[in-house]
Amino acid sequence: MNEVFVAGTGMTRFGKFDDATARTMAAEAVNVALADANFSATDVQMVFFSNAAGGLITGQEMIRGQAALWGTGLLGVPIVNVENACASASTAFHLACSAVASGQVDVALAVGVEKMSIPDKERVFAAIGTAVDLERRGELEEIFSGGPVGPDRSLFMDIYASLTRNYMRHSGATAADFAEVAVKSHAAAALNPRAQYRDPVTVEQVLASRTVAEPLTLLMCSPIGDGAAAVIVTRRERLAPDGPRIRVAASVLGSGRDRAPTEPTALQLAARRAYETSGIAPGDVDVIEVHDAAAPAELMAYEELGLCPEGDGPKLLHSGSTRLGGRQVVNPSGGLLSRGHPIGATGCAQIVELADQLRNRCGPRQVEEARIGLSENAGGFLGTDNAAIAITILAADSAR
Amino acid sequence: MNEVFVAGTGMTRFGKFDDATARTMAAEAVNVALADANFSATDVQMVFFSNAAGGLITGQEMIRGQAALWGTGLLGVPIVNVENACASASTAFHLACSAVASGQVDVALAVGVEKMSIPDKERVFAAIGTAVDLERRGELEEIFSGGPVGPDRSLFMDIYASLTRNYMRHSGATAADFAEVAVKSHAAAALNPRAQYRDPVTVEQVLASRTVAEPLTLLMCSPIGDGAAAVIVTRRERLAPDGPRIRVAASVLGSGRDRAPTEPTALQLAARRAYETSGIAPGDVDVIEVHDAAAPAELMAYEELGLCPEGDGPKLLHSGSTRLGGRQVVNPSGGLLSRGHPIGATGCAQIVELADQLRNRCGPRQVEEARIGLSENAGGFLGTDNAAIAITILAADSAR
Repeated sequence: MNEVFVAGTGMTRFGKFDDATARTMAAEAVNVALADANFSATDVQMVFFSNAAGGLITGQEMIRGQAALWGTGLLGVPIVNVENACASASTAFHLACSAVASGQVDVALAVGVEKMSIPDKERVFAAIGTAVDLERRGELEEIFSGGPVGPDRSLFMDIYASLTRNYMRHSGATAADFAEVAVKSHAAAALNPRAQYRDPVTVEQVLASRTVAEPLTLLMCSPIGDGAAAVIVTRRERLAPDGPRIRVAASVLGSGRDRAPTEPTALQLAARRAYETSGIAPGDVDVIEVHDAAAPAELMAYEELGLCPEGDGPKLLHSGSTRLGGRQVVNPSGGLLSRGHPIGATGCAQIVELADQLRNRCGPRQVEEARIGLSENAGGFLGTDNAAIAITILAADSAR
Repeated sequence: MNEVFVAGTGMTRFGKFDDATARTMAAEAVNVALADANFSATDVQMVFFSNAAGGLITGQEMIRGQAALWGTGLLGVPIVNVENACASASTAFHLACSAVASGQVDVALAVGVEKMSIPDKERVFAAIGTAVDLERRGELEEIFSGGPVGPDRSLFMDIYASLTRNYMRHSGATAADFAEVAVKSHAAAALNPRAQYRDPVTVEQVLASRTVAEPLTLLMCSPIGDGAAAVIVTRRERLAPDGPRIRVAASVLGSGRDRAPTEPTALQLAARRAYETSGIAPGDVDVIEVHDAAAPAELMAYEELGLCPEGDGPKLLHSGSTRLGGRQVVNPSGGLLSRGHPIGATGCAQIVELADQLRNRCGPRQVEEARIGLSENAGGFLGTDNAAIAITILAADSAR
């Protein structure tokens, strides 16, 4: 298997942009990534296009990549349309890495796009709600919401709230801890020009914001938004001489299943494999992007990724180690909470941030001496676990 | 790169089955394929799940594979949800082959499922209509239908009709020729227990059936239906000693682009690459499954696949060479017209038929001495070409 390198990255700002379409956003992210890699569109030999819910939100299904990439000069090569709920873009990235690792192609592109800010919010909530198995949706609503969920909200926040209440019992975490996560997220996003929300918030503001599902308040939940992110991967020989040297040390994909509470989660299993295949230990990682679709997920991820012992998530947060300036910075981009979460773009956006950090080009939010980055991207929910999970580890390899 | 072999195949009957769901059909196809390969679910290391329009037809988006495969014992391994319009299942098969060829996994599963027979036909036509770029849909309707297409039909039949009229001018083909294709298709499907339509038809009946879009009549158009098909691929070392030896000689994926009429189609380009990489010439192929979404497409495919010179499609048809008993049998399964076309399952169903032919287990529709099979699967439409195209070549490798 060839070593795989990130040759270039690009993304749009995340946010709510009335005029933006999948096409305009895809073109922007792809063109930035191509310029960054010093490649032209004709260098790209295969495209993995990620979108999670375009069929239900914008109406475009079936050939989303071909439609969105029309006009970029990329058409003609194989285009694979990939979907894996909130882990769609990491899935596309995983396949792009595989295509290069296998020698099938020299240059592959993963690009994720989502257009979510449409006037019809019910339609968006309904689309998000398809990240569960619809045949078991009633059962999940019973378990997590105590009955049918109306069209004005997403079942997912009830699921997160329930998981959060469990987590509170097991770790002693409090709503104030989750508010602290949101504060940290906003503080980082304030330094990220591509973030959706760039206003710092206080613990009091987070706690005082509208309750979405006890104990989650609005500012503890990732927003609806639009955006695109693109990552080009290649073999070492195709890297520009003065370009980045960001090696993909691990790209692990997994799916969840019904599991007993004592069994490891899909996230834990994928993280273990990523550490094993890369030879990198949790303590070696300098910068981390986790899937904080709701604030408590960041603390749970600390534990499941092995950054701290089980139950010590709040303690790690309060140590300051995971905030900017700390030893293992988590979500310097602002994460899903503040950078934003246009579903099908998120996984690639995490990788864009890690690559930028490893290339020392993050300005005021730069993690000092960042050499190893890890992302955790989770998608959908099956009842006791995520439906899809992706762990990526990037390593700065000699010169940047 | 490892050689890749088909270890086992399975499919449901295609048709309209009120009680069938994506889950029941996926389970049936997968379980047959596992038994055929003499594998258990735990042998499968990666799954590529194909579905083209579930988000719009059944409402399930985002995690279609995880939802459909719930209960099969397959969850836990990486599951990738793949979409490429009518070429979705071949795209999944292509990725499964790549995963094995690269050494990433030893055993991969491609499974395609589509549930289309729902009471709300307008919804199905609308879903099919998303296999074009929606931003250019108005332009395509203008070109191919002379104006907006109502909700009671699919733009695609107008597209096919327009391409057909062009083809008639260039080849001299007549409506009677297309009717002959449908007759041939039904005659084969009558011998295929898994086909949707098993009644032989006459040229007169085809011509007398309702006109869908001049010159296409109802019996020249592929039907709406439900079905699933699964293919397991592996390395030579993992094949059962007494199992099939069906080698994947080529698996080529491509996408279309705007092209001048003199430039080769995506189909032609992909076919050329498939012949080059396999060292197999068009004349070497014994059995072929083509994407006859409408009957004239079979004749066009003869030419684009190089089975006959340009313009000689009707002549090849009338030679009898492509019917059962002929030298190069095309669509012994009945093809999309009569075996059926549950969109996301079709590409895998083509491969199931080829593998069965190469294993000499097709009973009365068996192609004698079939050693090399080719499938052509096309998806979506961009304006002057298909959005996605896949060519697969299988070769019987020594003992069956």
